[in-house]
Amino acid sequence: MGKPSRTENKLVVVMRKDLNMNVGKCIAQGGHAILGVTNLIRNEGTEEQKKVMADWDAGSFTKITLAVNSLEELMEIYEEALEKGLPVKLINDNGWTVFNGVKTTTCLGILANSKEIDKITGRLKLY
Amino acid sequence: MGKPSRTENKLVVVMRKDLNMNVGKCIAQGGHAILGVTNLIRNEGTEEQKKVMADWDAGSFTKITLAVNSLEELMEIYEEALEKGLPVKLINDNGWTVFNGVKTTTCLGILANSKEIDKITGRLKLY
Repeated sequence: MGKPSRTENKLVVVMRKDLNMNVGKCIAQGGHAILGVTNLIRNEGTEEQKKVMADWDAGSFTKITLAVNSLEELMEIYEEALEKGLPVKLINDNGWTVFNGVKTTTCLGILANSKEIDKITGRLKLY
Repeated sequence: MGKPSRTENKLVVVMRKDLNMNVGKCIAQGGHAILGVTNLIRNEGTEEQKKVMADWDAGSFTKITLAVNSLEELMEIYEEALEKGLPVKLINDNGWTVFNGVKTTTCLGILANSKEIDKITGRLKLY
């Protein structure tokens, strides 16, 4: 066993580009996804998921943001992550500050082994 | 005591705009600040700071991103937060993916009572 690569585990945020959110809004939504998935693992994760998060936390702390261009595309990623049993948190904005008060699904966060994530998100471009 | 306002406590990210980071980079850096300050409170916070975070977590979860235009301006906010005893996390990017390998201080995160934060950051504009 060699030294783990600094990207063995990673946290990926998948963000809808079609909503044209400004940077501040993107940071807040990405923050919800990042905190959301880490809280999910802390509170409800399996021992294996907790170990992955601990390794990630102690190591590279790698975070990547990828783009999708529609709600449908986001939900496909979400469903695939659920099917594969990866810890994933979907973020629904309440619409208070943008989106004219309409609840809007903006992004998701996944924290897992990089190879497992890449099977789902490998085709997406960086945001 | 009335019902708490949904912005009684908040998490503020203060981000350097002069670095011209792309959106994905901003989200990753903001994510470091958000996770960093919540971990700081969880691991080293006072009972009062932990109570503030629990209220925030159970309630609005408000996140705001504000802009500064230089390292000096960011460090002023950081020093003021430290002086006032607010939980604050400063983020130093290792420069692997941008900044030509040069370690760069990009942003900070504060999670506290909104009025206390506003005394320090009230003059800043939204990112």
